[in-house]
Amino acid sequence: MARVDPAVAAARNAVRAALAGLGPDDLVLVACSGGADSLALAAATAFEARRVGRSVRSRGYAVRAGAVLVDHGLQAGSGDVAARAAEQCRALGLDPVLVRSADWSGTALDTEGPEGAARTARYRALEQAAARTGAARVLLGHTLDDQAEQVLLGLARGAGARSLAGMPRERGILRRPFLGLRRAQTEAVCAASGLEWWTDPTNLLPGAGSGAGAEPGGFTPLRSVVRGRALPVLEDTLGPGVAEALARTADQLRDDADLLDSLAADLLARAQVGNAETEEGEQALDAEVLARAHPALRRRALRLAALAAGSRPTDTTTRHVDALDALVVSWTGQGPAQLPGGTRARRACGRLFLRAAPTGNSDGWTGVRPPTTTQE
Amino acid sequence: MARVDPAVAAARNAVRAALAGLGPDDLVLVACSGGADSLALAAATAFEARRVGRSVRSRGYAVRAGAVLVDHGLQAGSGDVAARAAEQCRALGLDPVLVRSADWSGTALDTEGPEGAARTARYRALEQAAARTGAARVLLGHTLDDQAEQVLLGLARGAGARSLAGMPRERGILRRPFLGLRRAQTEAVCAASGLEWWTDPTNLLPGAGSGAGAEPGGFTPLRSVVRGRALPVLEDTLGPGVAEALARTADQLRDDADLLDSLAADLLARAQVGNAETEEGEQALDAEVLARAHPALRRRALRLAALAAGSRPTDTTTRHVDALDALVVSWTGQGPAQLPGGTRARRACGRLFLRAAPTGNSDGWTGVRPPTTTQE
Repeated sequence: MARVDPAVAAARNAVRAALAGLGPDDLVLVACSGGADSLALAAATAFEARRVGRSVRSRGYAVRAGAVLVDHGLQAGSGDVAARAAEQCRALGLDPVLVRSADWSGTALDTEGPEGAARTARYRALEQAAARTGAARVLLGHTLDDQAEQVLLGLARGAGARSLAGMPRERGILRRPFLGLRRAQTEAVCAASGLEWWTDPTNLLPGAGSGAGAEPGGFTPLRSVVRGRALPVLEDTLGPGVAEALARTADQLRDDADLLDSLAADLLARAQVGNAETEEGEQALDAEVLARAHPALRRRALRLAALAAGSRPTDTTTRHVDALDALVVSWTGQGPAQLPGGTRARRACGRLFLRAAPTGNSDGWTGVRPPTTTQE
Repeated sequence: MARVDPAVAAARNAVRAALAGLGPDDLVLVACSGGADSLALAAATAFEARRVGRSVRSRGYAVRAGAVLVDHGLQAGSGDVAARAAEQCRALGLDPVLVRSADWSGTALDTEGPEGAARTARYRALEQAAARTGAARVLLGHTLDDQAEQVLLGLARGAGARSLAGMPRERGILRRPFLGLRRAQTEAVCAASGLEWWTDPTNLLPGAGSGAGAEPGGFTPLRSVVRGRALPVLEDTLGPGVAEALARTADQLRDDADLLDSLAADLLARAQVGNAETEEGEQALDAEVLARAHPALRRRALRLAALAAGSRPTDTTTRHVDALDALVVSWTGQGPAQLPGGTRARRACGRLFLRAAPTGNSDGWTGVRPPTTTQE
């Protein structure tokens, strides 16, 4: 038996774990961009789908494996990239292989930025493909490098554990089997499997010293700057284990954030006061209950209260939470706190009242609310 | 009235908050290295100590303010640096001004590294000076830049929230009033006050491309590499607010880590089983109690159990906690987990048994245990 390339073996192991629990008639879809990561994922999935549940006692069984390619239509030739990737997926034995156009409806370039809007459009197309085919799982090719970059991007936001928690290994039917693999390993898988991958030119920096998004006449995503400059310099200065350390940090902080978010939701529920005395559309919170809580929970609960009153997650910063927290723990008769989306918070009679903006609110933002996550 | 330089005003405001609550006979000591940060701290403290508790209704009262200079004796001329800084502290009106040699007893260069050992020696000298003078508070000059560097150093370790939590604003009698000020502001304070500060040559890098600790024939602390290269590149690529974002991250994660550590200690106490059935020197933990807990708490509790059994904090990594966690949640009859310091953990009868190494333990390490924190 021919010796399996170590990168191929690592990729297959990772996919095997992600397919566990699927039944013989289930369909798994690989989200494929044509990049090395998702083509390697397609190859490993085509292989492992034939032997799900294999063990020393069982030969396992086959599940159906397909691929979905999302054409964003952002660059000239993007259709060719998708077609070439689709052809390789078919050659790997994947079926069905769907090519979908990104669904840009309801995305908001002005508030999400181009990266965020492209992400929203991509995930919507994936959801639609999964719904149409009845897929039980959708596999995404994000690697350890992507995760490390995500943590660095979160650091720049400085918004606590959740912004450093990176991408989850699973959410709903989504799985990310390659979060433990380096990007270079996925290139090795493609090379070993004779697959030709495509490199997104927006991920190639024009050279050092360009600064954030400074490419003239073009769009250099911040992620590309992190990939091309920030992470390499950190690996050079802090040591070659930095990407792994960042990914490990994400895993640990994701656990922390999940628990703390859940405890904060409990606290908010305990602090909520029946709305007999509140005006219409107002939340009332018992300031004493909040003040007694640990700041890590109190601040999260206050943020949740602001979101419930209509403030957008991406607009609600540490500074807004500071102002809410001051109404709770440093109450000296100060006026109301202004929150994003025209929401106001005021303190009276030992209570914190949060009032959503009336329709047609003060920041003029009345459209479809964008998705709340910035992590995918 | 002459207009006060904005940096001087910011420094004084920060110190004013740190002196709140001191009584008229209390002594506050400034830990002074001769650097811009601690000389600025000395100047602001000399000014604010004369008017503690000042308000619109009160002129306040004076507290005693002194300084302590620790001479590490690591570099030629370090005595001169200390003497020059002491002279400037006296000129500012601080009294007493103590110059102490660093107390290197019980530090462990081999396990702490030179930075860790110097830190231990410095804090010991500060403690002794505080005890001898009966100081009620000791002020440290760490700035927002130091905090940001601390977070980046923690990221390189990848050991979760606590390693990213930076330095606390207060611990015991220690206070760090300048964690909200940039290093450049402290230099502006010195310039405005006619103070001559000293720049530690080990903080100056020989130039880009040197790599971590790569200076031949010398000792380039990792912190200097972070200061000189990593942080500037992040500010260039991610935007100028990165240092502030890192410091904000530290504040939030410190709160999180404090709460989670306390909840984990509660969990460990609940999981502990009376030692009727345990061998001498063994801890017994109920695996079921641990398995039901949230991973963020369970993994912290397991780490605490390893430390209680004698594993050193700095040696106890994510990998060790993974092995302990597998004994709890992925028990398939595997053998004992080996922990640092010769500690062993095994599972039997639904319990996890942790056994400290016998005296003269397997890693040959029998000396004085170094301090458990790596954050100061």
